[in-house]
Amino acid sequence: MSLDIAFLIFDGVMALDAIGPYDVLSNIPNTSITFVGETRGLKRNQRGSLGLSADRAMTEVDRADILVVPGGFGEEEVRKNPAMLEWVRAIHATTQWTTSVCTGALILGAAGVLKGLEATTHWAAREQLRSFGATPVTQRIVEQGKVITAAGVSAGIDMALHLSRRIAGDEVAQAIQVGIEYDPQPPFDGVYERASAPVKTLLQQMLGHRMQMSQ
Amino acid sequence: MSLDIAFLIFDGVMALDAIGPYDVLSNIPNTSITFVGETRGLKRNQRGSLGLSADRAMTEVDRADILVVPGGFGEEEVRKNPAMLEWVRAIHATTQWTTSVCTGALILGAAGVLKGLEATTHWAAREQLRSFGATPVTQRIVEQGKVITAAGVSAGIDMALHLSRRIAGDEVAQAIQVGIEYDPQPPFDGVYERASAPVKTLLQQMLGHRMQMSQ
Repeated sequence: MSLDIAFLIFDGVMALDAIGPYDVLSNIPNTSITFVGETRGLKRNQRGSLGLSADRAMTEVDRADILVVPGGFGEEEVRKNPAMLEWVRAIHATTQWTTSVCTGALILGAAGVLKGLEATTHWAAREQLRSFGATPVTQRIVEQGKVITAAGVSAGIDMALHLSRRIAGDEVAQAIQVGIEYDPQPPFDGVYERASAPVKTLLQQMLGHRMQMSQ
Repeated sequence: MSLDIAFLIFDGVMALDAIGPYDVLSNIPNTSITFVGETRGLKRNQRGSLGLSADRAMTEVDRADILVVPGGFGEEEVRKNPAMLEWVRAIHATTQWTTSVCTGALILGAAGVLKGLEATTHWAAREQLRSFGATPVTQRIVEQGKVITAAGVSAGIDMALHLSRRIAGDEVAQAIQVGIEYDPQPPFDGVYERASAPVKTLLQQMLGHRMQMSQ
């Protein structure tokens, strides 16, 4: 029996939101992973310079043991797309685990999955979770029943290791962590609240309207 | 003036080796990033379940300010491909920075780029660096002149933040780190040498012939 894992991708996805968890979860024995788009074919990332292949259209996938929903600026279009939200709801009804990374939580929110739950997302979008009936919390990973939300972008790696542990146990999860040599040595403090004013100004330029929403 | 960054991709690439650095470096202002393959078109990752688009064939790219060479089991085929090694050498002659992640270092080595240098790679492949005239060291990031090698998979994120700092300064690099919310909280110790015997046995199964080479 394989564990079927579906990654939803779309134009404007943040690639690392998906690929971090992908290269963790794909190391769990007996997984079968599929990248799913509204239609089959290449989806361009947030910057446009990277193309990821959706090997299946959502009409071809009607269940998954694990659903992973990444974020990226393109999530706004996904939230306006009733068919995609309906697909997320339908797959969620079949999963053992429904997960999001970064602003993928807003897609889960728009699909109604986060109603009444605590959840997290990228720090710049955190307050938006309230509009979907969720309570934003500042943890890096939030597990509520079968729903796991992760903070921004790189938090997807930590979320997927957490999930690997829940599914396959400590030894397998640690082997995966050692296999991807995840012994992080970040050069700076990565927390927005503690950043200097010049760094916050640069983030404003980098994230544009996203930051304005959160101010 | 934009900073032209070329990512070499190939069938059997480890996706996170490339996408970690990509989603860091793409946040440096005025970068132009291209994924380059031996030919244009989809390259399948190590597991086969992910397709990345090479938007340019190597014959279409004759220079880069930064070259990033990821690893993955497919690197063995690249090392047997004289045209690809020649392309790496030719691009290296034009770069400000030539970098590798994980076993991408073996490709740089086979292209002659690491001769006489200290370098790193995935822990399971470290000793192989000697066959290319390089001296393996156990640091996560090794900078030697314009050549930067990173340890396994996830080390590419740290390498790219280090490089962002060298190119654009501390504030931009920290803004990128905060932007991808890189405040890692790994659940386990990620260092092979300190792992338990059961975890090492699982890694043997996971990495197969790679591990045998390193024993």
